[in-house]
Amino acid sequence: MELLSALSLGELALSFSRVPLFPVFDLSYFIVSILYLKYEPGAVELARRHPVASWLCAMLHCFGSYILADLLLGEPLIDYFSNNSSVLLASAVWYLIFFCPLDLFYKCVCFLPVKLIFVAMKEVVRVRKIAVGIHHAHHHYHHGWFVMIATGWVKGSGVALMSNFEQLLRGVWKPEANEILHMSFPTKASLYGAILFTLQQTRWLPVSKASLIFIFTMFMVSCKVFLTATHSHSSPFDVLEGYICPVLFGTALAGDHHHDNHGGAHGGAHGGSGPGSPHAAMAAKSKEELSEGSRKKKTKKAD
Amino acid sequence: MELLSALSLGELALSFSRVPLFPVFDLSYFIVSILYLKYEPGAVELARRHPVASWLCAMLHCFGSYILADLLLGEPLIDYFSNNSSVLLASAVWYLIFFCPLDLFYKCVCFLPVKLIFVAMKEVVRVRKIAVGIHHAHHHYHHGWFVMIATGWVKGSGVALMSNFEQLLRGVWKPEANEILHMSFPTKASLYGAILFTLQQTRWLPVSKASLIFIFTMFMVSCKVFLTATHSHSSPFDVLEGYICPVLFGTALAGDHHHDNHGGAHGGAHGGSGPGSPHAAMAAKSKEELSEGSRKKKTKKAD
Amino acid sequence: MELLSALSLGELALSFSRVPLFPVFDLSYFIVSILYLKYEPGAVELARRHPVASWLCAMLHCFGSYILADLLLGEPLIDYFSNNSSVLLASAVWYLIFFCPLDLFYKCVCFLPVKLIFVAMKEVVRVRKIAVGIHHAHHHYHHGWFVMIATGWVKGSGVALMSNFEQLLRGVWKPEANEILHMSFPTKASLYGAILFTLQQTRWLPVSKASLIFIFTMFMVSCKVFLTATHSHSSPFDVLEGYICPVLFGTALAGDHHHDNHGGAHGGAHGGSGPGSPHAAMAAKSKEELSEGSRKKKTKKAD
Repeated sequence: MELLSALSLGELALSFSRVPLFPVFDLSYFIVSILYLKYEPGAVELARRHPVASWLCAMLHCFGSYILADLLLGEPLIDYFSNNSSVLLASAVWYLIFFCPLDLFYKCVCFLPVKLIFVAMKEVVRVRKIAVGIHHAHHHYHHGWFVMIATGWVKGSGVALMSNFEQLLRGVWKPEANEILHMSFPTKASLYGAILFTLQQTRWLPVSKASLIFIFTMFMVSCKVFLTATHSHSSPFDVLEGYICPVLFGTALAGDHHHDNHGGAHGGAHGGSGPGSPHAAMAAKSKEELSEGSRKKKTKKAD
Repeated sequence: MELLSALSLGELALSFSRVPLFPVFDLSYFIVSILYLKYEPGAVELARRHPVASWLCAMLHCFGSYILADLLLGEPLIDYFSNNSSVLLASAVWYLIFFCPLDLFYKCVCFLPVKLIFVAMKEVVRVRKIAVGIHHAHHHYHHGWFVMIATGWVKGSGVALMSNFEQLLRGVWKPEANEILHMSFPTKASLYGAILFTLQQTRWLPVSKASLIFIFTMFMVSCKVFLTATHSHSSPFDVLEGYICPVLFGTALAGDHHHDNHGGAHGGAHGGSGPGSPHAAMAAKSKEELSEGSRKKKTKKAD
Repeated sequence: MELLSALSLGELALSFSRVPLFPVFDLSYFIVSILYLKYEPGAVELARRHPVASWLCAMLHCFGSYILADLLLGEPLIDYFSNNSSVLLASAVWYLIFFCPLDLFYKCVCFLPVKLIFVAMKEVVRVRKIAVGIHHAHHHYHHGWFVMIATGWVKGSGVALMSNFEQLLRGVWKPEANEILHMSFPTKASLYGAILFTLQQTRWLPVSKASLIFIFTMFMVSCKVFLTATHSHSSPFDVLEGYICPVLFGTALAGDHHHDNHGGAHGGAHGGSGPGSPHAAMAAKSKEELSEGSRKKKTKKAD
């Protein structure tokens, strides 16, 4: 009985891992990615005034993961742009989301139930990208653990890891925050996923790749759909990290480093704040919440 | 009769497309490029205080197009620097323009009639670079339309597309403006030219490459010489774009996006201003409309 | 007699150039590099709050030279990360320096006599890297003088040349200063060393590579140990440059360029100041001279 279920799970996973991504899943990936671009402040204004820049940003949102992976592995940065069909599909989505009359397309895909489906399908693509990226890196570096993890990570995180430069393209520059300082859930999950797939690829994780893809996809889909439905920015890893980080990295004595804190304040965010203040939290929230006014206050305070 | 003229045009174009660029045309390219570097505020001061940084900037101005194209196509970034003669020639030009006693060289090449000749010859090099770049990209990606266009574009635009980082090398950082947000005439022309040459390369444009090079060179030379002679910053494409852009990209309803505008203000330009200010609009309009004077006023205001 | 000593020197140099770098010398390289990271303001705070970002910075400090050289020569950026043992060793050093209980490890390696030994060994690695880098570049470009010099330079300077982006990773952004504008002694020495090794490689310098490595290593070790022991930031090249630079680059007439200075002010550092202020000079001096306090004042003024 159990054997059977195991079998069926294995077969299910195998057939699932063979579902072609193009065009349906890729389409959802493009839609969700460009939706997030449209959510960015000033993105609509940008699209109307500087369509070329907006289109380039949209392409980075859709294909950033390939660009970064190609950069790491020394392949042509625009290699993926030779897939005309994908680029044309992404461009069509970009045009519809930004310039469709009456914002019809945007309103449709923003309708929560529809959006959740697209979000779920995007996670399917993300997990598959991680797996493919690690397989590709393993092909180049058979024992390059770090290479595999890095490649899988950038394949999963995509534009997030180059957000500073994607913003620069739009004329925005926020050096005090980047995705590595304040990892979002997908970035963290991609990192952990990359580690898992690397272990699997190097035979340390005794499961088939298909099963791992299936299980990790289920995990990502459920998490991301839940987070999107509840408009939550928390991450299921917080609890775990709350236990592990203090043990691993919390051993430094705050007392020792007051000077450093201040240094960090001057160098970092906007000069940050005094000792003892929950600085990381503030910094993390700053992007979403701080009004320009309060930011100026912070700067003054730092002076 | 007409046949004859057609023939002669074809032959003229063919022989024109075979004129060697090195050294005379390349020399003009270097002279004009480094002239524009010297026009940059603080460039002379930089050359005296930090000659290495100034030399590197000059090299970027002369060879930026090769560096960018190599980056896109995954070739060694400094591949072109193995042409010692070109690099030495560019270095000599850099030295003469910045350090020639009494600024003699600078004054000579700045003399308008002389300068116009150099500007004209620079455009000849630009067009040839676009054609070569697209031919090169086509060799790697036979059906990579976007790859070809991108390669031709960067080969034509050169340092302009990496101006932010060229400025950073000089200790200047202006995130609110980049060449893709505010395209200058050469950048736009290179983009359109890259599209034309890509169409020609893929047999969609029924003209010989030599003729296209000839015609497009004539267009670029006449435009650029006229613009330089009249110190004008307008572009012949403005009229065309004035008709097309509203049709293609003007459909978004301004009303929808007031919030976005402010968002843009916060993200963009000067780190934004209090809510309610029409800042994003200003930022967007700045380059087209603001005179240097009013820009200074803005800077003061921001101080 | 002299012949003998020459012989013995040659043999000594040869055997010295064959000393394996891994693990002892590499270990010292990692320790000193990550020590400098810990000296950065806010680095300790960063390590506690954002270990991933801190680890990435540490890796850049240890392997930045390989990343830059790979970028220039068009090889995979993370090629060197396939050396698991090196990466693990560097990670262990990073962990011990930042998270060792009671900062024991840090206090030990900071003990001046110990530190001086590590600093000396780091210079051994630096010189070897320059030599290897130039040999590698020469293998690709037999007559590419500039390619060889550039490769040797980045191999010797390492993370310093990408400090702006290493800071960005930590959420710090200081566009007004970069290593090329204000070269530190190691960066300058690497540049001069790269030139020497290039001359040797191309048979213009009639010495054996082993001897050059030996002599240049002795020079670097003695200089760096002296500078570290005396906490001095001056450089032995200052005198030489004091003589050469005015002759080569000092010929520009200050009078001509007042306008440029102001321009520089507008472009540079803090988005500039009112006309008439000697801002360009300030910008140039800022790094060396401005105390944190006066910098704060400037920031206020900018608000």
